[in-house]
Amino acid sequence: MAHIIDHEFYKDSWGTPEMRAVFDDRARFERWLDIEATLAEIQAGLGIVPEEAAREIRAKARFACIDEDRMREDLGSTGHTLMALLNGLERACEKPHGEWIHYGPTTQDIQDTGAVLEMRDAWAILVRDLKRLEAACLALAERHAATPMVGRTHGQHGLPMTLGMKIAGWAAELRRDIERMKDIPSRAFFVMLHGGVGTQASFGAAAEETTKRFAAHYGLFVPPTCWANARDGMAEYQTVLGIVAGTLGRIANEVFELSRTEVSELHEPTPKTMVGSTTMPHKRNAVRSEFTGAMVKVVMNNTLLGLQGMIVEHERDTRVWRLDWHSLPESSLMLHKALAHMIAVVEGLDVDEARIAANLDMLGGAIMSEAVMFHLGTRLGKQTAHHVLHEATMEAAETGRPFREAVLGHPALQGVIAAEELEGLMDYSQYLGTAEAQVHAVIAESRKRAETDPEV
Amino acid sequence: MAHIIDHEFYKDSWGTPEMRAVFDDRARFERWLDIEATLAEIQAGLGIVPEEAAREIRAKARFACIDEDRMREDLGSTGHTLMALLNGLERACEKPHGEWIHYGPTTQDIQDTGAVLEMRDAWAILVRDLKRLEAACLALAERHAATPMVGRTHGQHGLPMTLGMKIAGWAAELRRDIERMKDIPSRAFFVMLHGGVGTQASFGAAAEETTKRFAAHYGLFVPPTCWANARDGMAEYQTVLGIVAGTLGRIANEVFELSRTEVSELHEPTPKTMVGSTTMPHKRNAVRSEFTGAMVKVVMNNTLLGLQGMIVEHERDTRVWRLDWHSLPESSLMLHKALAHMIAVVEGLDVDEARIAANLDMLGGAIMSEAVMFHLGTRLGKQTAHHVLHEATMEAAETGRPFREAVLGHPALQGVIAAEELEGLMDYSQYLGTAEAQVHAVIAESRKRAETDPEV
Amino acid sequence: MAHIIDHEFYKDSWGTPEMRAVFDDRARFERWLDIEATLAEIQAGLGIVPEEAAREIRAKARFACIDEDRMREDLGSTGHTLMALLNGLERACEKPHGEWIHYGPTTQDIQDTGAVLEMRDAWAILVRDLKRLEAACLALAERHAATPMVGRTHGQHGLPMTLGMKIAGWAAELRRDIERMKDIPSRAFFVMLHGGVGTQASFGAAAEETTKRFAAHYGLFVPPTCWANARDGMAEYQTVLGIVAGTLGRIANEVFELSRTEVSELHEPTPKTMVGSTTMPHKRNAVRSEFTGAMVKVVMNNTLLGLQGMIVEHERDTRVWRLDWHSLPESSLMLHKALAHMIAVVEGLDVDEARIAANLDMLGGAIMSEAVMFHLGTRLGKQTAHHVLHEATMEAAETGRPFREAVLGHPALQGVIAAEELEGLMDYSQYLGTAEAQVHAVIAESRKRAETDPEV
Amino acid sequence: MAHIIDHEFYKDSWGTPEMRAVFDDRARFERWLDIEATLAEIQAGLGIVPEEAAREIRAKARFACIDEDRMREDLGSTGHTLMALLNGLERACEKPHGEWIHYGPTTQDIQDTGAVLEMRDAWAILVRDLKRLEAACLALAERHAATPMVGRTHGQHGLPMTLGMKIAGWAAELRRDIERMKDIPSRAFFVMLHGGVGTQASFGAAAEETTKRFAAHYGLFVPPTCWANARDGMAEYQTVLGIVAGTLGRIANEVFELSRTEVSELHEPTPKTMVGSTTMPHKRNAVRSEFTGAMVKVVMNNTLLGLQGMIVEHERDTRVWRLDWHSLPESSLMLHKALAHMIAVVEGLDVDEARIAANLDMLGGAIMSEAVMFHLGTRLGKQTAHHVLHEATMEAAETGRPFREAVLGHPALQGVIAAEELEGLMDYSQYLGTAEAQVHAVIAESRKRAETDPEV
Repeated sequence: MAHIIDHEFYKDSWGTPEMRAVFDDRARFERWLDIEATLAEIQAGLGIVPEEAAREIRAKARFACIDEDRMREDLGSTGHTLMALLNGLERACEKPHGEWIHYGPTTQDIQDTGAVLEMRDAWAILVRDLKRLEAACLALAERHAATPMVGRTHGQHGLPMTLGMKIAGWAAELRRDIERMKDIPSRAFFVMLHGGVGTQASFGAAAEETTKRFAAHYGLFVPPTCWANARDGMAEYQTVLGIVAGTLGRIANEVFELSRTEVSELHEPTPKTMVGSTTMPHKRNAVRSEFTGAMVKVVMNNTLLGLQGMIVEHERDTRVWRLDWHSLPESSLMLHKALAHMIAVVEGLDVDEARIAANLDMLGGAIMSEAVMFHLGTRLGKQTAHHVLHEATMEAAETGRPFREAVLGHPALQGVIAAEELEGLMDYSQYLGTAEAQVHAVIAESRKRAETDPEV
Repeated sequence: MAHIIDHEFYKDSWGTPEMRAVFDDRARFERWLDIEATLAEIQAGLGIVPEEAAREIRAKARFACIDEDRMREDLGSTGHTLMALLNGLERACEKPHGEWIHYGPTTQDIQDTGAVLEMRDAWAILVRDLKRLEAACLALAERHAATPMVGRTHGQHGLPMTLGMKIAGWAAELRRDIERMKDIPSRAFFVMLHGGVGTQASFGAAAEETTKRFAAHYGLFVPPTCWANARDGMAEYQTVLGIVAGTLGRIANEVFELSRTEVSELHEPTPKTMVGSTTMPHKRNAVRSEFTGAMVKVVMNNTLLGLQGMIVEHERDTRVWRLDWHSLPESSLMLHKALAHMIAVVEGLDVDEARIAANLDMLGGAIMSEAVMFHLGTRLGKQTAHHVLHEATMEAAETGRPFREAVLGHPALQGVIAAEELEGLMDYSQYLGTAEAQVHAVIAESRKRAETDPEV
Repeated sequence: MAHIIDHEFYKDSWGTPEMRAVFDDRARFERWLDIEATLAEIQAGLGIVPEEAAREIRAKARFACIDEDRMREDLGSTGHTLMALLNGLERACEKPHGEWIHYGPTTQDIQDTGAVLEMRDAWAILVRDLKRLEAACLALAERHAATPMVGRTHGQHGLPMTLGMKIAGWAAELRRDIERMKDIPSRAFFVMLHGGVGTQASFGAAAEETTKRFAAHYGLFVPPTCWANARDGMAEYQTVLGIVAGTLGRIANEVFELSRTEVSELHEPTPKTMVGSTTMPHKRNAVRSEFTGAMVKVVMNNTLLGLQGMIVEHERDTRVWRLDWHSLPESSLMLHKALAHMIAVVEGLDVDEARIAANLDMLGGAIMSEAVMFHLGTRLGKQTAHHVLHEATMEAAETGRPFREAVLGHPALQGVIAAEELEGLMDYSQYLGTAEAQVHAVIAESRKRAETDPEV
Repeated sequence: MAHIIDHEFYKDSWGTPEMRAVFDDRARFERWLDIEATLAEIQAGLGIVPEEAAREIRAKARFACIDEDRMREDLGSTGHTLMALLNGLERACEKPHGEWIHYGPTTQDIQDTGAVLEMRDAWAILVRDLKRLEAACLALAERHAATPMVGRTHGQHGLPMTLGMKIAGWAAELRRDIERMKDIPSRAFFVMLHGGVGTQASFGAAAEETTKRFAAHYGLFVPPTCWANARDGMAEYQTVLGIVAGTLGRIANEVFELSRTEVSELHEPTPKTMVGSTTMPHKRNAVRSEFTGAMVKVVMNNTLLGLQGMIVEHERDTRVWRLDWHSLPESSLMLHKALAHMIAVVEGLDVDEARIAANLDMLGGAIMSEAVMFHLGTRLGKQTAHHVLHEATMEAAETGRPFREAVLGHPALQGVIAAEELEGLMDYSQYLGTAEAQVHAVIAESRKRAETDPEV
């Protein structure tokens, strides 16, 4: 195999067996055969195709019935992606029943309906696992709703916050992603059964009824008009996957950065047998977050193919819709693996509370400068207090003088604040604002929204 | 000016005055000042800020009150994007009222709330004009619901369809785009008022009430938790713009291709004064479609910046959110201009019905091969009929022999079909399937969905 | 298989056997084993590893010697992409020789050197075939150097040109692409043998000599410093592939558009057995150009992954370099297939000279308006002549009046130009400028540059 | 202004005055006028245009001579980007000299030659500053060639390296970037003077001589054939900028991460007046690196527009080449600012050697596990030693037991290594391999390559 998602040994690092099964090449042929058989049955029900032909087509509509060697030959000589399979099915059928195969549809009807079924299966798997990751985040957020931790902005220590609030932020974003996923079906899960240029002329007078029954059989929607050249549904699927990838990428990056040697607050669950390096025996890497960081780039990048795939010329244009065969599987597989990684990471996250507490105090209280500023603001005015404290902290940073001393020693603060008073402001757990409340708001929001979640 | 969307002479080719006003740099400062004043007033109402200070801040919260030279200096010395403006406002206020400016919020609170307000204004303009373009398409589709026209696949003539059905396909896609736009607000139009690391600690006990009033004032939502590092809403806005760009790009490409000299079925409305070329006086170019084709590439491409902008490190990360200052205006402006172009094109589209009819007959009836196939299929079996007709049309293409003759002369069809019978199958208007019905289905779908359209 | 480039039946539409062999997953393991054996041999030559161990390692350095089941187990338990293979090799070796395997290098040394070898093989194949396509274009350009054809701008007929000049433009671009390919090796084909963080400390005093011999063995360059975190060479390979994709995409689009039913000047070579549509028997599609159009989008898009892959954190960062495992094979495979398609298309291009001549006259001479303008310019002034002819052609376009009549009938031209004189200006073959000379200039330029082409 | 690079107050954070001057909208008009005048002069020298006309055109070829109001009107009525300016120039000239303006060229000749001149100016500025940044890196690398520092892989402490080697890696990558820049001119700095469809027919018999003189005047190359539809040169410029952006992005990210509170080894030079936060007075942010991190994303992303811009239909296609007006300025400006930021950062980098030394020891020597492994390897075999040390370090990580104790206490090492012997292995400065040599190799390589650097 040449592609990493099919790599004989590594494929499970870049995809999952469950999602691979959705996009498996042979499964795709089975799906197309099933679509042909289903159509024949529906047309038989409408008196278009003989009942007996429909039964024979259904009976032989399994890839096992196809002569693979002949199919390969036909593929070579016709250069057509479906004709060879149809010829195989026709040959498998007792004569003359095979004449009724593919009675009306065009290639893209079969292949796009098939693609939608794959997309829907992938979608259901992703929704299910997004909900699982959301649940894991909510549980962890609740557990640590009040665990003080330093909040960082611009890579610098900023102010105290809580670990739970950080993780609730992931959950809130995941919930919005789930809502985005829920919006997809009505705009993308359409049946395609429109014939050569979309008019359904080849389906005769029963065209609308055939389409309705066909859609009902597969649980798909009937579009108001042919969408062979309107690929916005596919594009939306890709862009929503891109957004989910962004969320997972953010979580993965956060875990990676918080597990770096110098920070060491969070660690991925790591079995003892895991090896970080062939040459540096002490290494313990955030492997899952790293793989996720790589894969989400591919998924995000592929959204552009989805968008470019919308510029279809005239009624059908393989220069763009063929791209779906590349991007839908690739993005679905990598995103599902990234999701699986993050579920494992959040469910088993190793939280080093001692290190979190130690890091919180790393700047000796300077992260409380805002609290001190507001306190002093009532005496000096807030803007003035900001200037004074900016000077004091800059001096502390340069000279290494402790923050408390720098504040107490600042000329403008002589007689303004006493040491004990300053000390009283230095309790991190008293300056957490609505952090805990935000965790509960996220949980409540999730519960409310989940009421309309689909069964998947 | 260095950027094309600000180009002194060309800016109206790459944007619109209406959208430029939304993202104007001075308007942005006014908006930030308004946000500061609004906050001060709300805090005054809650007893946090003195009433008198709030009144003074409101009075001076106009860019006209700011000393621009001082602001420029401060910008240089502080290197901070907001501090210089705040210093200017403080200086403009009577002492000591300026001390109460920006009491609690952090920079990103002001700037992101401002960005959301810009995004919402842009969104409303885009929704309004998408509806206008949809209406233009629906009207044109209805008018030409039954106008026969050749359908093209792979760049080749395929089967007859109708012009109305083609345009209904644009309308259906635009409607789905409008629905996508309608999904954005609940996930993106959030107020930001969360302080340094998102805990709202600096807003004290009144944090939640302050936020609620602040959001109500601006008609924005209160998020369950701080979204300073959760940029999915911005990303969704960008991706939906990218999808809309795809739709407009498809329409523009279709008009461009159908107006090429050899096809010449549709033409953009072109005033006589328009010049196509400085050197070829006969040129009549599809200028609006061309500009649209260029601009949609930028908008689609920018979606990636939106997605990349989701990978925020820790609680705040300007390496990504600053990108919004680039991409939101650029994409909104170009998309709005593209939309304006397509409205003008569809509303004034010059339809050459004679040429459409002539082109339909260009292959001398070969595009009816499918109809003939189904007709013969009842005698020969459909697959057999396909093989026979494939041979006949290939022969016709190679030898230049007319399609009818090639069919009637095919050995396998001797005695199977008579000339008059064949002629009877050659009526394009009798092989249009559900084309007209699809137009009406699109109109009905649009009416139904429009019931929940927002007032914009 | 889940990815289209590994699809059991379709893989040859999205890649080539030759290029698949380069990136085959088992071939990759063989390559890594060979690298380990080569290193052991070099280290034996330097007295670091026992000769006997090196011999044993070389003897067992074939994937056939590895216990695959154990390897799979180890892969699962260690989660490490190389350790499992090394364990397998160690187990395959007679004790204690296996202790000397991988003596000094880190994982990325083996995997990146392997990746460079793959990239170099892919590069050589691409260069060879780019030269073949260039040759095909030059031959065709020369044959049609003087064949008049309409030149089109903005999709509209512009002025006469020649078919040879059009194709020479492809050749000139391909030559520049070949030059770009030639620039890659000195900046990207580096050996990697730098150990854990790049210092080569684990290679001891012989580090530099080991590296030199290792590089010499594989014909790669020694970089001045470790490039484990400097991925610009990989990125350049990707961007040059992206540019080549752009060239192929342009050729494919041109063939596609010129083969559309209404234009029909060029056609891909199509065996009679090819089927265009399962339902429209007359279809003859530009299949190779269509597939090329799809695949080049993927290759161009992947360049972004190459660029993003440059943002490496610290000394090694799998979040980016792992992307190479996805993108190098995918882009190389698709680009090679696109190249193969275009070679087949240009070598066998079906040129319809009659249609080319007919289309040239489609506007009844209006495309000579520039020639007429310059002719009249000597009498009226060129700008004035432009205004007059613009009016005449606009009138012709609106009323359907022939161009010659519209010119002769224009009020401003009464007495200025006579009918015979105008007719004398209407010879397309007399207004071809340097078209033919440009063809020869391109051929000459190619010959000159080809003198420094590498042997591939 | 609506775009951030033209923002009245912030433009200097997203671009530089020097680069803005290159792409200034009025400067562009001046350049076009100069091109028209130059052409007229050359044509006068060849007897095509009257000398007097050429003199008059040159005299009036300044934007100050153009009636701006009329130009605006003409722009509106013609919808043409150049005609309005030409009309203005014609009106400015004494009659009838204006008739000789633009005698032969088409719009794209003027605009693309102008774009190439802009691109070349931008290129020269970028090359100059890349060399300055390279020099700064080399100087810093040399100064710290032997300063021990921890090397990090996967975000974890790996092995000792030197600060100089890290920075030499930046310099080596920058040098390769400079070489890439040097490759651009021969493939992209072409004159365009080919008329409507590229045949130069409108330039008459003197076409080749006119082009040669025109190119010589501007110091540009004559292409073998018209490149109006061959945009690979523009695309290469964009991709090389994308690669340079990747390099700068890597440096910026490295500085950002190494300046985070927990690491604090490097800091950007920061004047005391800089303000990190409006609300957290102690903040000291890596502002330049952050801005750089944002801007390089835009530049990298824009490469795709360059590549997409290669898919030109027929002889001229504004749907793609107009994109250059967006992307060349935007990317050049942001890249130049990013470069300026990194020059300031590297030239003034604040290196905290004490912190670097402290961090190196953070794991209590565990980063020497590789050195210990090789030492023990001579006794136990390397693979065995790896397993033993992996166990010891995992135990140390879990229990908090110091590395030395965990090693000495490991059952398999009893009697194998003594405490003093282990201590002797713990000297970081003795395990730096070729780090220092690599610094000197990079300096030597740069000197050698710089011999062929262009004068800029």
